[in-house]
Amino acid sequence: MTIRTHSMKQSHLFTKTRREAPKDEVSKNAQLLIRAGYVHKEMAGVYAYLPLGLRVQNKIKDIVREEMDAIGGEEIIMTSLQRKELWEKTNRWDDETVDVWFKTELKAGGEVGLAWSHEEPIGEMMKNYVSSFRDLPIFVYQFQTKLRNELRAKSGIMRGREFVMKDMYSFCLGEEDHTRFYNKTIDAYLRVYDRLGIGADTFVTFASGGAFTQFSHEFQTIAETGEDVIYINREKKIAINEEVLNEETLTKLGITRVDLEEVKTAEVGNIFNFGTQKAEDLGLFYKNEKGEQVPVWMGSYGIGITRVMGLLAEKFADEKGLVWPEHIAPFRVHLIELGNDNVDVHSEAQELYRELNEAKVEVLWDDRDVRAGEKFADADLIGIPLRVVVSEKTLAAGKFECTERATGHTSHKSISELIGHLTA
Amino acid sequence: MTIRTHSMKQSHLFTKTRREAPKDEVSKNAQLLIRAGYVHKEMAGVYAYLPLGLRVQNKIKDIVREEMDAIGGEEIIMTSLQRKELWEKTNRWDDETVDVWFKTELKAGGEVGLAWSHEEPIGEMMKNYVSSFRDLPIFVYQFQTKLRNELRAKSGIMRGREFVMKDMYSFCLGEEDHTRFYNKTIDAYLRVYDRLGIGADTFVTFASGGAFTQFSHEFQTIAETGEDVIYINREKKIAINEEVLNEETLTKLGITRVDLEEVKTAEVGNIFNFGTQKAEDLGLFYKNEKGEQVPVWMGSYGIGITRVMGLLAEKFADEKGLVWPEHIAPFRVHLIELGNDNVDVHSEAQELYRELNEAKVEVLWDDRDVRAGEKFADADLIGIPLRVVVSEKTLAAGKFECTERATGHTSHKSISELIGHLTA
Repeated sequence: MTIRTHSMKQSHLFTKTRREAPKDEVSKNAQLLIRAGYVHKEMAGVYAYLPLGLRVQNKIKDIVREEMDAIGGEEIIMTSLQRKELWEKTNRWDDETVDVWFKTELKAGGEVGLAWSHEEPIGEMMKNYVSSFRDLPIFVYQFQTKLRNELRAKSGIMRGREFVMKDMYSFCLGEEDHTRFYNKTIDAYLRVYDRLGIGADTFVTFASGGAFTQFSHEFQTIAETGEDVIYINREKKIAINEEVLNEETLTKLGITRVDLEEVKTAEVGNIFNFGTQKAEDLGLFYKNEKGEQVPVWMGSYGIGITRVMGLLAEKFADEKGLVWPEHIAPFRVHLIELGNDNVDVHSEAQELYRELNEAKVEVLWDDRDVRAGEKFADADLIGIPLRVVVSEKTLAAGKFECTERATGHTSHKSISELIGHLTA
Repeated sequence: MTIRTHSMKQSHLFTKTRREAPKDEVSKNAQLLIRAGYVHKEMAGVYAYLPLGLRVQNKIKDIVREEMDAIGGEEIIMTSLQRKELWEKTNRWDDETVDVWFKTELKAGGEVGLAWSHEEPIGEMMKNYVSSFRDLPIFVYQFQTKLRNELRAKSGIMRGREFVMKDMYSFCLGEEDHTRFYNKTIDAYLRVYDRLGIGADTFVTFASGGAFTQFSHEFQTIAETGEDVIYINREKKIAINEEVLNEETLTKLGITRVDLEEVKTAEVGNIFNFGTQKAEDLGLFYKNEKGEQVPVWMGSYGIGITRVMGLLAEKFADEKGLVWPEHIAPFRVHLIELGNDNVDVHSEAQELYRELNEAKVEVLWDDRDVRAGEKFADADLIGIPLRVVVSEKTLAAGKFECTERATGHTSHKSISELIGHLTA
């Protein structure tokens, strides 16, 4: 059992906030995240995650992991170095076919690829574990650093050359078995977006299908800075992307064009039905009850972890800085101690920090010896949901000043009221 | 707060054990780990981690993380893609100087490196956060997938082309400040090895130093299959490697050659004192109290997470298979249900599984419909510390048969005795 629960003194955090993002950074998400000390830009489209940023990334992963486990997913981690021969089997080694490959050479001789996706290696690996119908279905997922050689990288952490993705793969007996899991995954994804605080604005969107289905599905979240456009009916929770916005689709969905609203969105997930083609290319077959060799029905299901983090950063930010949803924030409470010289204020802050920790509330305690204005500006930029001020004034009043970052709403609470509120 | 505690039914595990490892696999650790379904070999020196293997890897990480946090480490995650220019500053871009580089090309133009180490990028990044003596010291660490273009890769997961490393970096005011943290890290490392079950066999070993110190230190663990040879005095807990085994060292340590025993070992950690050279090359300076620009004193501290996992696999294995130390095992209990047709046996197994879960004991429940002999052989190969059998016989006796994997010692315990034993 692992418990990862850490509060922290801000004086211990090595990062500092900055007034300005680097001049070459054009995306809103990265500008904010760099200024607040969440990420560091290594090069265009390539970002390191610093203590605050890694905490947010891990919280998103934890939510996704729980929901994938709940539908029977088994977590694994594949490799970044990939064999050329596997991708040749499916005709995807060629740079003409896949234009985001990074490739390199082994000193021992031979070319290898750097992971931009994993269906080929995972499908190949499953040949070790799948022989009979009794072995299926299998659902595996990983949180993997993907490398994609994008020509341009101007979207910050929303579309990078190096990014973290949750990719899941399903191996089923046939279409019926596949469809059951595919639909379960749609529900699991919607639970994920709910828990990330974007449930109401996220739509399962009809997109063009492949050889095996009329439609595929994307998950699109309404976002001012989004790159996509979709057509939605909020009441019926129907969404259609541009590719399939035609009479046939409208009729099928029992809706007319006037019922649809055009909105800008960002893609936060996608799911694919591979049918049996990929398994046939790779040679992944199982023996059915009649003893016949049957190709495995495959699907894949992605959520860009760092992409979603970028979306959340952009979507909820205001002019003062980041505004994290409660379950994603690096800490639940930003405890601001004002006037560190005052012994009583300091011991009151210490006591509150102790009690919040005991109640398993994660706290960033601004114990730094800097001006009040700087502390408030930093708190706004960093975007922790609840700011709690301890000062001579609050000491005299016997209640702490509690301000919600999202709404600016301020209230005054005793320790027990505050803990009651946070653990309700 | 994250709680990662999962029991699992073996019927749900997609991996299967195998009698034989792949023919091209020559290392003992990988042979065992592949046969037991912990890892999959993608290519020489490149392994994927399957559900059991990922659990073990995470448990090692959790222990290391706790100990690094306890000495003030802040967790981050740097990038795999690295800028050529940074490594040119320290003259380490050249393949003649560093012979394990994987390099690749950006489509947008320019060569980039794939992370084999991170001191240059981390040192460079710190220029954003270090300006005054007040900003130091800083200790950061990460769990990172490193890529190293090894000419040969025949040691399984103990020396791979792709592997997971905990690397920590210290940024200090000067030698005194550095030495304090360096010594703290030695203690933290020894706590890690204790918790991994190899404390008694692990030695802080004197090795040759660099420009800044007479000695550096390695952590070496006695292992039959080890690649290194060191000279130890068990009583005094002194160890010296071959490079520095000379009269001067012996005199300094107050020991004679006859007091030393020659043993085969595997390196499980290493720590380096960079002095100020690296900071000078990178331009990482701080302003001291007198307003002077002073180069930062740097150090680095590594533990190969997957390497240690390979060592533990080899060191404790016996002729029947793996034998994991308690805190590293993928599960604490392997619950073996014999005779699934018997409704009473099945409901007893179910009840035990439920109660163990409630007591937060992680269980792998072998609920598969296979022969007893196969279940026992698999349990031996997989190597979970305690095997608990539920059968008609144990039902009649009112006690479960409990066998320790390491010793073969068998006892009979009621549910409450078993839970008492496991949670003591």
